[in-house]
Amino acid sequence: MGCFADRLIDRAKKNQSRVIVGLDPTMARFPAYLQAQLKADPTEERLEETLFVFNRVIIEATEDQAVAYKPQAAFYEQYGLAGVRALQRTITLMREKGLLTIIDAKRNDIAHTAGAYATAWISPTHPLFNTPNLWQSDAITINGYLGRDGIDPFLAANPDAGLFILAKTSNPSSGDLQDLPLASGETVAEKMAMLAQSWGEQVMGSEGYSNIGVVVGATYPELSAKLRALAPSAPFLMPGIGAQGGSLDAISAASGKGGVGAYAASSRGVMYPFKAEQLHQENWADLAAEQIFEAAKKLREAIQAKLT
Amino acid sequence: MGCFADRLIDRAKKNQSRVIVGLDPTMARFPAYLQAQLKADPTEERLEETLFVFNRVIIEATEDQAVAYKPQAAFYEQYGLAGVRALQRTITLMREKGLLTIIDAKRNDIAHTAGAYATAWISPTHPLFNTPNLWQSDAITINGYLGRDGIDPFLAANPDAGLFILAKTSNPSSGDLQDLPLASGETVAEKMAMLAQSWGEQVMGSEGYSNIGVVVGATYPELSAKLRALAPSAPFLMPGIGAQGGSLDAISAASGKGGVGAYAASSRGVMYPFKAEQLHQENWADLAAEQIFEAAKKLREAIQAKLT
Repeated sequence: MGCFADRLIDRAKKNQSRVIVGLDPTMARFPAYLQAQLKADPTEERLEETLFVFNRVIIEATEDQAVAYKPQAAFYEQYGLAGVRALQRTITLMREKGLLTIIDAKRNDIAHTAGAYATAWISPTHPLFNTPNLWQSDAITINGYLGRDGIDPFLAANPDAGLFILAKTSNPSSGDLQDLPLASGETVAEKMAMLAQSWGEQVMGSEGYSNIGVVVGATYPELSAKLRALAPSAPFLMPGIGAQGGSLDAISAASGKGGVGAYAASSRGVMYPFKAEQLHQENWADLAAEQIFEAAKKLREAIQAKLT
Repeated sequence: MGCFADRLIDRAKKNQSRVIVGLDPTMARFPAYLQAQLKADPTEERLEETLFVFNRVIIEATEDQAVAYKPQAAFYEQYGLAGVRALQRTITLMREKGLLTIIDAKRNDIAHTAGAYATAWISPTHPLFNTPNLWQSDAITINGYLGRDGIDPFLAANPDAGLFILAKTSNPSSGDLQDLPLASGETVAEKMAMLAQSWGEQVMGSEGYSNIGVVVGATYPELSAKLRALAPSAPFLMPGIGAQGGSLDAISAASGKGGVGAYAASSRGVMYPFKAEQLHQENWADLAAEQIFEAAKKLREAIQAKLT
């Protein structure tokens, strides 16, 4: 499979894209046709199928526009077992298609437990049966609050996998902790970026980027440039474009070596470019695919224009 | 159901206990009889059943010794869908028995997504169907790195639920970030405890404790006392006793108002007081229950002796 950083950059170059498509299901925004089907048949099986089918439409519409896909674990967990089954099928579909999956799980714990999370999400095989791990993703988001021994078990489970450590998140109150200056001068967010940079030096790819990246909200153009300087080898996963008002300037400020270091993660903007009630007919999938493709393409082109 | 802090303290008084039993399945440590059964029938169904049955033995053996149970999400996720199904059945069992469940998930994200995690783990009802939420736990552990708007959605989903915010974790490298002094004087861990204290003031119970607690490793007796002073209303969830070498002094130093503020979370020490191969016969459950009961009782009594 090869190292995550190289695979990410390969796809970025091949698709001339820096777009990571979020897969965050919220049933109230799904095409009305799917919502009506589920209302008529409110079962776990139908819910699983609905979640999976809509994901498949998004994925197939955007394959040539996206660098990777980022399912957010919370939006599957909220639907219980049906949600987790739909997530498993989505990950399997992406693997079959050779697409990159970044599971946005923000997992974190002490070493023993971090190892169990690594087994769940990035290990190639089931821990007991001699079978493939059906949840295996190419990369995972991690909260680094617990320090290095919350990170090492992920490297041990699969050194080719990517890890994105939260540095500066896109939400309004991220500053409650992350913006506080340390006695040593830098802020907590800056320190996390520096730690990610140092942790990543042992898993460098061939393009000058590490398998250990950082999450930096696209909502802070100036800070992005500063964090890029502190973590020159880290791929940047940048959510916040679209619904949260992030800026393309933040992406270009963090683009780094070769211009391939920063990736915009967009979920709602790409997934739901339509009004649910417009898609109330049996041909909902064709109409949705067309609009989703256009939304992804528009974002891809806007970022590429900024980068050149 | 009533507020989490009050229910926790009620059970602490009723059982004269400060013990929270972790439910962290690691198949290699399970009774040999169960391991052999699974080897002979390596299926998802058998795996689910094995995980659930052993949890039930632990729970039934310790009901009168424990204040609450703390399943660690990672140890279920590592076993994929079978693990998540076993977790769901375990949560359901505890609800039927009227026991308290603290899901140790260390979830965290921006507000929109934190709301989905809250729906998954503490909301009373399924988000789409008019049915109970089968994953509903009484409390959840949370990483507070994202600040207040990663917390508020949990309070909105269920103000009676408990939230334990990571302050100082029990692992050796927790200091990488948590021990760093801020320019304002306190360390990152101390600041998190102060934030938890202030966030918790809106969800106070009748005993002087809030529904918002903190996680503090039982591996730091002196720091425990300091954090208790900074967060006087926070119930302390204190892992690290046993396998990690934590100290009962840390529990008593944090016991707080009325001596009901600090709770020792023990997983491996209570779950696996036997050698797997000793329990290779069909009567494994009776033998395991006896040893598990004794381990929990011994820990309960050791803490009670420290507190008086």
